[in-house]
Amino acid sequence: MNMRYAMALEYDGSPFMGWQKHHTGATVQGEVERAVSFVADAPTEVVCSGRTDARVSARCQLVHFDSGARRDPRAWLLGTNTQLPDAIRALWVQPVADDFHARYSARARRYRYSLLIRPVKPAINRQFLSWSREELDAARMHEAAQHILGEQDFSAFRTVHCQAKHPNRNLHRLDVSRAGDTIYFDVQANAFLHHMVRNLVGSLMLIGKGERPVEWMKTLLDGRDRTVAGPTAPAEGLMFLGALYPPEWGLPAEVTLP
Amino acid sequence: MNMRYAMALEYDGSPFMGWQKHHTGATVQGEVERAVSFVADAPTEVVCSGRTDARVSARCQLVHFDSGARRDPRAWLLGTNTQLPDAIRALWVQPVADDFHARYSARARRYRYSLLIRPVKPAINRQFLSWSREELDAARMHEAAQHILGEQDFSAFRTVHCQAKHPNRNLHRLDVSRAGDTIYFDVQANAFLHHMVRNLVGSLMLIGKGERPVEWMKTLLDGRDRTVAGPTAPAEGLMFLGALYPPEWGLPAEVTLP
Repeated sequence: MNMRYAMALEYDGSPFMGWQKHHTGATVQGEVERAVSFVADAPTEVVCSGRTDARVSARCQLVHFDSGARRDPRAWLLGTNTQLPDAIRALWVQPVADDFHARYSARARRYRYSLLIRPVKPAINRQFLSWSREELDAARMHEAAQHILGEQDFSAFRTVHCQAKHPNRNLHRLDVSRAGDTIYFDVQANAFLHHMVRNLVGSLMLIGKGERPVEWMKTLLDGRDRTVAGPTAPAEGLMFLGALYPPEWGLPAEVTLP
Repeated sequence: MNMRYAMALEYDGSPFMGWQKHHTGATVQGEVERAVSFVADAPTEVVCSGRTDARVSARCQLVHFDSGARRDPRAWLLGTNTQLPDAIRALWVQPVADDFHARYSARARRYRYSLLIRPVKPAINRQFLSWSREELDAARMHEAAQHILGEQDFSAFRTVHCQAKHPNRNLHRLDVSRAGDTIYFDVQANAFLHHMVRNLVGSLMLIGKGERPVEWMKTLLDGRDRTVAGPTAPAEGLMFLGALYPPEWGLPAEVTLP
């Protein structure tokens, strides 16, 4: 009889062509399924809470999988980590109810986008930092972001390749702050459209440079026209922090809604 | 006529066999000399403030070089960065007095050693983090470290391969602190013996685990016997923050003694 398991993953996305399996090229899903299948001794599929693009990293990507193999959580964890490349690590494994779903049970997702402001590109942490030679006003970007919070139609920040059924999302939080020479965009929503975080950041950057007024984010949102918004910010700065689930699933605190 | 220049470098040490040129293998020195020589249009040697071992990274490695090529600092900077691999970046270039020496003019060096404490190895930032599955007491290690500050004979923390003429160094600071699941060892001395930081950390870790008493650092120091000290901590956690110089050289504040 199959049991369902939740597994949390941390990964450095820089060596991979993103989460989703391709016909060619290394992907996070491909590596994780290979490792879990080895431990299960049977082909095993994993379903994630949020697919990440090429070169995007994750602090706590939750996945679920079903297996009839009898292993305790520690054996799943240690066995999987033995099989994974260094750039991916399983953080913990826990049995979950059969109707838990890593994607559909999630109620919120969190991302952080990190942007280094200095004359020279980063060498250290270059896999996790976007970069701007030009100065940007974090307070101005933060103010602009507050105008688009809540349940909204985010068509203006959605890539043409987005496969979502509708463009409505509930943006819980978009905080822009600065620490030293790095600007952080901390974003939480119930879910995201494809490229939504990078498109939000790309438009905010034009406001941060003073090329657009603070009200422009709201204007863009209301216009629902992707073609007039700012460019998509580079993948390197994007980190998927993870999804949050209702407390009834009994998952660890770090992935449970407060 | 030759001019002398100071150049600050940031590098991710993970792809390199350390600072110093080898007959085989990529080194930071080799890459920097290749880039600077290209811009100078003549073979040019660079001298660094502190040689780093294989896989050790640097936030601000200061080097000097001499050249008869007429380039302004901006041209040296941009030209060199065009030629360097992504893992190395020149941060700034400045003309300096002919008697300035990146190594001999330095009055202090600073390192940070970062140690992640958790059950699973890091995937993100694994190039810059050492790792322990076992819990360590940061306060206990900090207390132990305070007993060996000042001008001392550090023979107990010196590798047998160390080529320094004498084992005396002035340890200005060794602070052990914890933020979240990471322990930081912040170390400053006038200069360091080969492997000295990693040997200090390796012995402190035994104290942090409770395997040795707090007084053990002082006992080791007084014994001057490398063979009884703790193991050398792994290179991955070590970051060379940079050297500090007297104000009279007119260098930027980040490399000048307060």
